[in-house]
Amino acid sequence: MKPRAGRFFEDFRLGSRIDHPTPRTLTDGDSALYIALTGARQILHCATPAAQALGYRDRPIDDLLVFHVAFGKTVPDVSLNAVANLGYADVRFLAPCYAGDTIRAESEVIGLRENSNRRSGIVYVRSNAFNQHGELVLTWVRWVMVNKRSADAPAPPPVVPQLPAAVPAEQLAVPAFLRAATFDTRLTGATDLWDDYEIGERIDHPSGLTVDESDHTLATKLYQNNARVHFDELAMRKSSFGRRLVYGGHVISVCRALAYDGLENALAIAAINGGSHTNPTFAGDTLYAVTEVREKWRLPGRDDLGALRLRLVGLKNLPPAELESPIAPGGAYPPSIVLDLDYTVLMPRRLP
Amino acid sequence: MKPRAGRFFEDFRLGSRIDHPTPRTLTDGDSALYIALTGARQILHCATPAAQALGYRDRPIDDLLVFHVAFGKTVPDVSLNAVANLGYADVRFLAPCYAGDTIRAESEVIGLRENSNRRSGIVYVRSNAFNQHGELVLTWVRWVMVNKRSADAPAPPPVVPQLPAAVPAEQLAVPAFLRAATFDTRLTGATDLWDDYEIGERIDHPSGLTVDESDHTLATKLYQNNARVHFDELAMRKSSFGRRLVYGGHVISVCRALAYDGLENALAIAAINGGSHTNPTFAGDTLYAVTEVREKWRLPGRDDLGALRLRLVGLKNLPPAELESPIAPGGAYPPSIVLDLDYTVLMPRRLP
Amino acid sequence: MKPRAGRFFEDFRLGSRIDHPTPRTLTDGDSALYIALTGARQILHCATPAAQALGYRDRPIDDLLVFHVAFGKTVPDVSLNAVANLGYADVRFLAPCYAGDTIRAESEVIGLRENSNRRSGIVYVRSNAFNQHGELVLTWVRWVMVNKRSADAPAPPPVVPQLPAAVPAEQLAVPAFLRAATFDTRLTGATDLWDDYEIGERIDHPSGLTVDESDHTLATKLYQNNARVHFDELAMRKSSFGRRLVYGGHVISVCRALAYDGLENALAIAAINGGSHTNPTFAGDTLYAVTEVREKWRLPGRDDLGALRLRLVGLKNLPPAELESPIAPGGAYPPSIVLDLDYTVLMPRRLP
Repeated sequence: MKPRAGRFFEDFRLGSRIDHPTPRTLTDGDSALYIALTGARQILHCATPAAQALGYRDRPIDDLLVFHVAFGKTVPDVSLNAVANLGYADVRFLAPCYAGDTIRAESEVIGLRENSNRRSGIVYVRSNAFNQHGELVLTWVRWVMVNKRSADAPAPPPVVPQLPAAVPAEQLAVPAFLRAATFDTRLTGATDLWDDYEIGERIDHPSGLTVDESDHTLATKLYQNNARVHFDELAMRKSSFGRRLVYGGHVISVCRALAYDGLENALAIAAINGGSHTNPTFAGDTLYAVTEVREKWRLPGRDDLGALRLRLVGLKNLPPAELESPIAPGGAYPPSIVLDLDYTVLMPRRLP
Repeated sequence: MKPRAGRFFEDFRLGSRIDHPTPRTLTDGDSALYIALTGARQILHCATPAAQALGYRDRPIDDLLVFHVAFGKTVPDVSLNAVANLGYADVRFLAPCYAGDTIRAESEVIGLRENSNRRSGIVYVRSNAFNQHGELVLTWVRWVMVNKRSADAPAPPPVVPQLPAAVPAEQLAVPAFLRAATFDTRLTGATDLWDDYEIGERIDHPSGLTVDESDHTLATKLYQNNARVHFDELAMRKSSFGRRLVYGGHVISVCRALAYDGLENALAIAAINGGSHTNPTFAGDTLYAVTEVREKWRLPGRDDLGALRLRLVGLKNLPPAELESPIAPGGAYPPSIVLDLDYTVLMPRRLP
Repeated sequence: MKPRAGRFFEDFRLGSRIDHPTPRTLTDGDSALYIALTGARQILHCATPAAQALGYRDRPIDDLLVFHVAFGKTVPDVSLNAVANLGYADVRFLAPCYAGDTIRAESEVIGLRENSNRRSGIVYVRSNAFNQHGELVLTWVRWVMVNKRSADAPAPPPVVPQLPAAVPAEQLAVPAFLRAATFDTRLTGATDLWDDYEIGERIDHPSGLTVDESDHTLATKLYQNNARVHFDELAMRKSSFGRRLVYGGHVISVCRALAYDGLENALAIAAINGGSHTNPTFAGDTLYAVTEVREKWRLPGRDDLGALRLRLVGLKNLPPAELESPIAPGGAYPPSIVLDLDYTVLMPRRLP
């Protein structure tokens, strides 16, 4: 049958491995587009001399751009028939990607659980992205709700993987070559370093960004994520949303870009511990971001860098100043919260 | 007179040759934009290692991106005063273009025929695009209806060139270096090869893409095609369309990208045999694509590759499943069909 | 305090120097986007062989793209709390930038004048942009009206710098390597050279370009200009504009691109003498451009190149043919004029 219809729940087998088409070479063109699409200003991805002064051989491709491209590769095999993207965990950024690198992805089914209504089930996959040298650059787990082709089809016994609440400090991949001791804060204009953030601190990022149809669809096409909910207005008009949905990963990227002001020296993302897209985002929505500092970790063997575990809350159509504290306690999300992301960044430390 | 007003029908002379300004260097930036604008996923243009495994020295620039840029060069000289783009024929892709190559174009007037109302005429041009080494990379014929400056102006005797209905297999430029025998279908995730397509087969491509104003205008500006109908909303409000028109070439690109699912191993476009833009496309329209397999050709001296002559039908606001068969028999096009393109692709063959 | 709130009038000290974050590496990706965003066709920035034939080592990055990126760097420090961008002067393009170059900017406060209402003041800064080798590539003066934190705060004695009405011919930076004697006008298709323009001549550029939300916001994010007026629809709905404003620099770029037809051989911008954004531009507006030739200058020691001082008038929703002459005499601008820019270009001369 051409074309392939995507996998249904019964097509997944525990332990089976999927090679995802199509490898993708990332270039300076993708990086420029990523800046234009998100407004990102993180120094490591913007300025080659700054990256080289930190020990990188070149300006690395933005962590989230790599993530979206790798994630997009898994969509046709994993989530084309997904009813919902339920979550991700244990996302670890293991090696930098540079312009010219080619990314491919593969997944292994690590959990399956039929829903009680027998019409769908939850599929857990561990996905890995490799560069052209076969080095693992990114690994992550996600789980999606996938329709069954037939409610009568038998289901395997339920297997639900154990997933860590957060990637622990000792599992963060801190590049051996990275030297932050001489990091020059004049590059970012912000003097706040790891030492200057306090657990529980809340940062209301001042900028807002209104999303329009063309920019979210350009981004999602750049990532070669072909989930139809983002592109096909005619089909979406018949859905409960009534229109095209903004890809949740693009919301993460926009919020990370908005969170630059106040986190200027967060050099790289080391891990995404978990995250939920708590409400849909549509074109016309204005996004804002709030950060809460969740944990501060020293890193084994490093006194030049520390890790901050952050909560990034994405808002739509509500300026941060109007968001109550505590934010969404117990997971009670008002309609204005679109993203609740738990992630970990690397930041230079104040030298003794 | 500054600026130049574009040629009218009486300004074209049979046999005259036009050097088109402005040469254009294509880069990885253009390729990244092309992916973002169209959602293209063709492996040859996306992944350097895959292209190199096939014998290319690098990832070639997408065939249609080269076509649009070369075509755009001819617009100021050929079609700025065109009433209609009537068709093209004998479009042959002769050599790959790579990032860093510079494309220039020239045309020769090969036919002229005044219309009976004496107010306009049809101009046929053979256009050629060259790279910076002077190699011919692309050649094509198109014909346009162009206004006369004055109905009283005398017209030359009518000359209408003979054009082939299709580029025959023996005229397709198959690169000598291209080696498809070891092509790894895991790269595309689709096992269907040349042998697996049948003449008359219809493929309903599953995805749809809604076009917005910014994405079609960005694309057309990228191609440096300055035809005013695509850009000037104020002027177009007074036209019979009432608004900006989407550049037909961009419709081709979007439909080719949509047609990836079901034609994953169509590596490269070897020729466009002909095509019609049968209805206008506007921002807000959702495009879909249907392919019919028209012919299957063996290629002289090659058992690793074959050619498929395909019909690519572009739809607006009508999912493929709702399109009747046979599609538009005898050229009777319903309003939902926007494109009827006849083109030829190269695809690996199943080895004996 | 995180994040920084931007400087208020009392935070500026005469003579103080500001290092602006964040350096930015420019690439072929930025250049491709610039073409897609503006429709620019200037030969020097489009075709490597043409640039090299003129003596450049590579295709230089578009002058205005460099300007916007450098300008964007100054926004967080200079104009985040600006009420209005009042003007710029003495903008000199001193050295070409190439793909791979990294731009950083710094500013010096050269003038301060409190307004009579004591609630705001005018800040004059001289800004300089450098490449990664420390070469000064661009210098400019601008002045902005900035709010005071408190009306009661004392103000320094007023200092208003003397600014030239235009950069004189002998201060224009004409690259020593640039050789225009052999410039081939077939590259641009226009035979008009410096000799063929007359002082007082008016050129009505034929094309119009309608701006949409996504394209102006993509451009402004590409420039990493984070002024909130361009991005935050929710906040702007409460402003007197009622919606997002198009960044004035993007209007300059679009008008410069529209002015290609009629000024095809204007190779590079040597200076911007001054300019005013005389009315706001919003998404949905269609931009047009008119040029007036203001002065013609011979350049010291050069008979291959001359300078033209031009007035570039940007119009919205009014085709040039409907614009009266003289244009806005005495600075009386009708609502349809959005830009009045005084700039100087380098153009090849007809050889003796």
